[in-house]
Amino acid sequence: MPKLWNETIEEHRRAVRDAVLEATVALVAEQGLRGVTMSRIAEETGIGRATLYKYFPDVESILLAWHERQITGHLHQLAELRDGPGGAGERLAAVLDTYAFIQHRRHGHGAELSALLHRGEHVLHAERHLHGFVRDLLAEAAAAGEVRDDVAPDELATYCLHALAAAGGLPSEAAVRRLVAVTVAGLRRPS
Amino acid sequence: MPKLWNETIEEHRRAVRDAVLEATVALVAEQGLRGVTMSRIAEETGIGRATLYKYFPDVESILLAWHERQITGHLHQLAELRDGPGGAGERLAAVLDTYAFIQHRRHGHGAELSALLHRGEHVLHAERHLHGFVRDLLAEAAAAGEVRDDVAPDELATYCLHALAAAGGLPSEAAVRRLVAVTVAGLRRPS
Repeated sequence: MPKLWNETIEEHRRAVRDAVLEATVALVAEQGLRGVTMSRIAEETGIGRATLYKYFPDVESILLAWHERQITGHLHQLAELRDGPGGAGERLAAVLDTYAFIQHRRHGHGAELSALLHRGEHVLHAERHLHGFVRDLLAEAAAAGEVRDDVAPDELATYCLHALAAAGGLPSEAAVRRLVAVTVAGLRRPS
Repeated sequence: MPKLWNETIEEHRRAVRDAVLEATVALVAEQGLRGVTMSRIAEETGIGRATLYKYFPDVESILLAWHERQITGHLHQLAELRDGPGGAGERLAAVLDTYAFIQHRRHGHGAELSALLHRGEHVLHAERHLHGFVRDLLAEAAAAGEVRDDVAPDELATYCLHALAAAGGLPSEAAVRRLVAVTVAGLRRPS
């Protein structure tokens, strides 16, 4: 059965958009932020410059769109772990572990790109979303006796996310794993 | 015995400098960064504009000088606690506690001023210095059996400083104390 014309258009637009995002990020990784122009991106993606400008006004907006897509993907990934099988403590550990590795990989972007991307309003929004969601999971784990209950889940969430942000500067995956272990140790009930 | 002429000059210069720093920070706290001019600072300090320009070229450089003085003061304060009496674990706790409260108070500056001040090279230098010094104290505490030794002191220092940076966003001193307790709990030997 042939697709509706609108659906096909929509799919095509999404494919072009995705190709532009990928090409831009690859170019920036290769040549740095300053070396990348709209013409170069159009060339790399195989579309005309005029077409590219129908999608995005400038390089910065492409990078922000890419970053928004990344963040949305990460939040989905974390939400799946939260809603997965297992006890609250186990799911919490999976979420914190994955979050730490996201922070670790994110650092590969370089300082210039990070500074640009993290100015966006969408980052603040995602951080608030993530905080609320880690807080709820901590509350669930505390109620199940798997996490200390002498400190409010809200404060524990702030602690976790700050501590795990350290993963960004760590040199190896083993170091990230140790950071997660130390951070999680702080969440245990005091004996 | 009268002071040497050079000493008196040096003292006078330092007094003027300090008065300029204090007046500028008070004005910025009152009126925001944009509302403060060199003329207003000269007026508030009771010195001529021409004299003020002999000390500092602009408002930003005054704020950076103030910030450098603050940071140096904080590092001295932390070094005194490190070199004080008591076991390594106790001194470590005192250093981490004080650092958390410094982060907590620092946040009062407002985002605009923070962004300006934290661009400086001196901040990076101070962070490295602090990191090294917390690392050495952690190594000492680990050797004394008061801190876990399954994770390198360098990584534990990264964990501590990131976790305690969360104090900047906490609403109360009680919350800062709980954050320190949770962070220190992460440093205990796993049972």
